[in-house]
Amino acid sequence: MGGDFAPREIVKGAVLAARTDGTNIILVGPKDRLKAELSDCSAGSLPITIHHNDDFIREGEPPTIALRQRPGVSIAVATGLVKTGHADAVVSMGPTGGVMAAAALLLGTLEGVERPVVGGPFLGFAPQTVVVDLGATVDCKPHQLLSFAVLGCGLARFVLGIPNPTVALLSSGTEEGKGNRQVKEAYELFKESSLNFIGNVEGIDLPRGKANVVVCDGFVGNILFKLAEGLGAAVADYIRSRADSLPQADLENLAAEVFHLTNPGERMGGPLLGINGVSVVGHGRSTAKAVAGAIAIARLCVEIDLVGGLSAELSRVGKILRT
Amino acid sequence: MGGDFAPREIVKGAVLAARTDGTNIILVGPKDRLKAELSDCSAGSLPITIHHNDDFIREGEPPTIALRQRPGVSIAVATGLVKTGHADAVVSMGPTGGVMAAAALLLGTLEGVERPVVGGPFLGFAPQTVVVDLGATVDCKPHQLLSFAVLGCGLARFVLGIPNPTVALLSSGTEEGKGNRQVKEAYELFKESSLNFIGNVEGIDLPRGKANVVVCDGFVGNILFKLAEGLGAAVADYIRSRADSLPQADLENLAAEVFHLTNPGERMGGPLLGINGVSVVGHGRSTAKAVAGAIAIARLCVEIDLVGGLSAELSRVGKILRT
Repeated sequence: MGGDFAPREIVKGAVLAARTDGTNIILVGPKDRLKAELSDCSAGSLPITIHHNDDFIREGEPPTIALRQRPGVSIAVATGLVKTGHADAVVSMGPTGGVMAAAALLLGTLEGVERPVVGGPFLGFAPQTVVVDLGATVDCKPHQLLSFAVLGCGLARFVLGIPNPTVALLSSGTEEGKGNRQVKEAYELFKESSLNFIGNVEGIDLPRGKANVVVCDGFVGNILFKLAEGLGAAVADYIRSRADSLPQADLENLAAEVFHLTNPGERMGGPLLGINGVSVVGHGRSTAKAVAGAIAIARLCVEIDLVGGLSAELSRVGKILRT
Repeated sequence: MGGDFAPREIVKGAVLAARTDGTNIILVGPKDRLKAELSDCSAGSLPITIHHNDDFIREGEPPTIALRQRPGVSIAVATGLVKTGHADAVVSMGPTGGVMAAAALLLGTLEGVERPVVGGPFLGFAPQTVVVDLGATVDCKPHQLLSFAVLGCGLARFVLGIPNPTVALLSSGTEEGKGNRQVKEAYELFKESSLNFIGNVEGIDLPRGKANVVVCDGFVGNILFKLAEGLGAAVADYIRSRADSLPQADLENLAAEVFHLTNPGERMGGPLLGINGVSVVGHGRSTAKAVAGAIAIARLCVEIDLVGGLSAELSRVGKILRT
């Protein structure tokens, strides 16, 4: 039931994933509404079941309080299915805060991780660049940025197949000593770590893919992510508006391509990194195709045992995380 | 001598400003090099003089230390010409830190301002939106964000002609209570102020021009500014690369327009806000046209008495700034 277009687009996305990849789906939510949506999709023969539930975290409600007071809210029930082994992964288009709080509470974090993060390739222009954190943790200490880097490296290594990912701190200048206090302190920790640290990068370097893992706090990451989304949409609209001077059909294609290259929301479904289990947060504005994409990412994370890989990565970097 | 294409593009920009607007220019730098550049521009009859100087702040040198140890560095000399009344404004494409330190040291800040800021319309898509700070102050306290807002309102009012500018905090969510500690604390101060405060905006709202003044610290502002620059360049390159399916000449135009709409570096020359005098910082990568644009902005700031206007604005909001 989470996401701007729930339940319709979520159900359609689940049907798409079940039909295309044969993924087994458990939908958590109000039985009657979900049944109606499923029958609209002619999903009768697909491996989809419904787990009835009708409570959820309300808009503006602090998730940790809601989870403590009402352990039967849908995100807790869905995450609980992973904890009890009834499901291999949980996928939600609901607010990151709720998904994360449920994951942290019910599945716990990996050794060496204080706060889970969301990360992934940030722009179509830079498909080999993982940005962490994209919005999970808005107030960060320098040593937490280091743990984000380790998790981002794990994602780059295991999901993108990059053997020795380069790591950079996102800052307001490339030279050592540029940036705010948080980044300057983190710089020292990164230098001493066993990461393949290449120094600071700036905003302009993000579309250029200058590093495989770019680290920032979730406040900066969220704003960047959404600026790229807004710019992608604005550019696409602008290209469409130029129909007077160029052939309309070609412009539509160009607009769609540019939107795809700049707009992270179109493709994103990121696993929470640092959680002892697979929990994937999709974009609130996801439509069916993006939902199916998020489900495919969850499936991939299970198949490659991302959690095991990240756990090994964390113990390799080890004690420097606990400064 | 500041800027990536100095002195050539700086001199060409100065010549352009003198030729187009009849602006009187004093070039500060090494006499022989500047003379040679001027003669390449056939600038003989224009109102341009040279103030010889051959020391400058070096790359990586902390500006405040350089200014104290060598008061004859070019940015100090140029700023000093404003202090002594020999010039009405100083314009530089050199690093913001040096321009700002010289301005703060020699011209001082306005009553109520602890740290000057750089701000202005951020994107071609949102020409009525001033973003402050774009990189002058990377570590900010909440009450400093409030003074940035007041200065941004002054710029919106006096330069853009917006009578009662709407003000927003840039955050990781629109609801009150979303954001990092800095923004949450600033939210309270903004609410209590006499500003036309409309709450938080997100990154996606920037190209939409949802507020006339959007406030963030200089760390976030710098990264946003440069991400937009990088995305604009990447999109323009991508459009150009599509010559297979669309007529090349039209695509060139479209690419240039999109670049202009997204790329703040192409147009920016921002006055330092909060300084007791006019000091304009241009983009390091400025070519002649952008340099002439920065000079035109400086001229406008002088003609409308922006400093007097900002001073009045600050005393109007008054005591709440000194929390």
